[in-house]
Amino acid sequence: MSVVTKTIKLKSKGESDIIDITDKVDSCLKESSLKKGIATIFVSGSTGALTTIEYEPGLIEDIKEAFEIIAPRKGEYHHNIRWQDGNGFSHVRAALLGPSLTVPFSDKNLLLGTWQQIVFIDFDNRSRSRELVVQIIGE
Amino acid sequence: MSVVTKTIKLKSKGESDIIDITDKVDSCLKESSLKKGIATIFVSGSTGALTTIEYEPGLIEDIKEAFEIIAPRKGEYHHNIRWQDGNGFSHVRAALLGPSLTVPFSDKNLLLGTWQQIVFIDFDNRSRSRELVVQIIGE
Amino acid sequence: MSVVTKTIKLKSKGESDIIDITDKVDSCLKESSLKKGIATIFVSGSTGALTTIEYEPGLIEDIKEAFEIIAPRKGEYHHNIRWQDGNGFSHVRAALLGPSLTVPFSDKNLLLGTWQQIVFIDFDNRSRSRELVVQIIGE
Repeated sequence: MSVVTKTIKLKSKGESDIIDITDKVDSCLKESSLKKGIATIFVSGSTGALTTIEYEPGLIEDIKEAFEIIAPRKGEYHHNIRWQDGNGFSHVRAALLGPSLTVPFSDKNLLLGTWQQIVFIDFDNRSRSRELVVQIIGE
Repeated sequence: MSVVTKTIKLKSKGESDIIDITDKVDSCLKESSLKKGIATIFVSGSTGALTTIEYEPGLIEDIKEAFEIIAPRKGEYHHNIRWQDGNGFSHVRAALLGPSLTVPFSDKNLLLGTWQQIVFIDFDNRSRSRELVVQIIGE
Repeated sequence: MSVVTKTIKLKSKGESDIIDITDKVDSCLKESSLKKGIATIFVSGSTGALTTIEYEPGLIEDIKEAFEIIAPRKGEYHHNIRWQDGNGFSHVRAALLGPSLTVPFSDKNLLLGTWQQIVFIDFDNRSRSRELVVQIIGE
């Protein structure tokens, strides 16, 4: 049993940019010598979040529209009044979806469904350079 | 320390069918020889998700109604226009709740509250045969 | 590799009381002798949940208001009709946000962003004494 720490660097456009990171997580796993265990992906920041979706253009729009209903971009946020950075909606969306995702693997393969991809969503209101942590534990 | 991989097979009715899988996860744990650690339950698919609830008929209805507000079954989804399978709402709901749940255990027992059960929710719009992964790590 | 089980005791006011537990989780980590791995924080109960936010007064209000839209306190809940305890909204909110959060650490430090804190949200409709589990796995 051991722990392998990897990072994924990416540039996002913000504004609920939904990025498929499955291949990057898979590369982290293949670079480790671990065969079975879990990979925890983590966003070190409070305006991005993780989940899995079937990564196709229709759903990408649907997810963006769902978050626009849950926490509207033009809504009134106390955060915006205090900090004048206009990304209160980004913080609320990211808190609801969560910064952490744990995916099991076996025989060196992530145990995802055929039409299931790991996505990072950048809810911030501007483009960002991001560094995600991939903490792999296993044997 | 070791990793034990188990699977839970179940049939669901779809349409936000909420299934208590606590006993099944507990059986996976008891079958392993591990005393303390974490169990990660994972849905290998993009229309199901996991959480914990007090499993009683009132809340089961309340959770279904909450998701009907967040992502209505009859809403307009780009996914449906593209794929004609009518389950855009299922994908959005599953992405919001998430495919992964990690529960700690100690003395061979899941550290759940007295009125807290682990549930799988099948958001798809039809009955499905499902196989969940239970990845147990501990000593 | 080993597993260290810690608990965090706290008193909450309920009514979506949002409590910064970052220092408490960090203390659990420092008390263990582990250098790198993951810490899974878990709410053993069905009316509390975990996420990360930038812990500042504006966002604390924004998160509370978001949950008031998603699952209104005064809404009609089947749970309330059955049990007369009036906390149907608490259960629904907690189920949506989730009881589990996994945070990686390295060099004995949680890999959080600079403006990212771990928070416990007590959605119950009364003050509660809570005990959270912190299950630390690593080497």
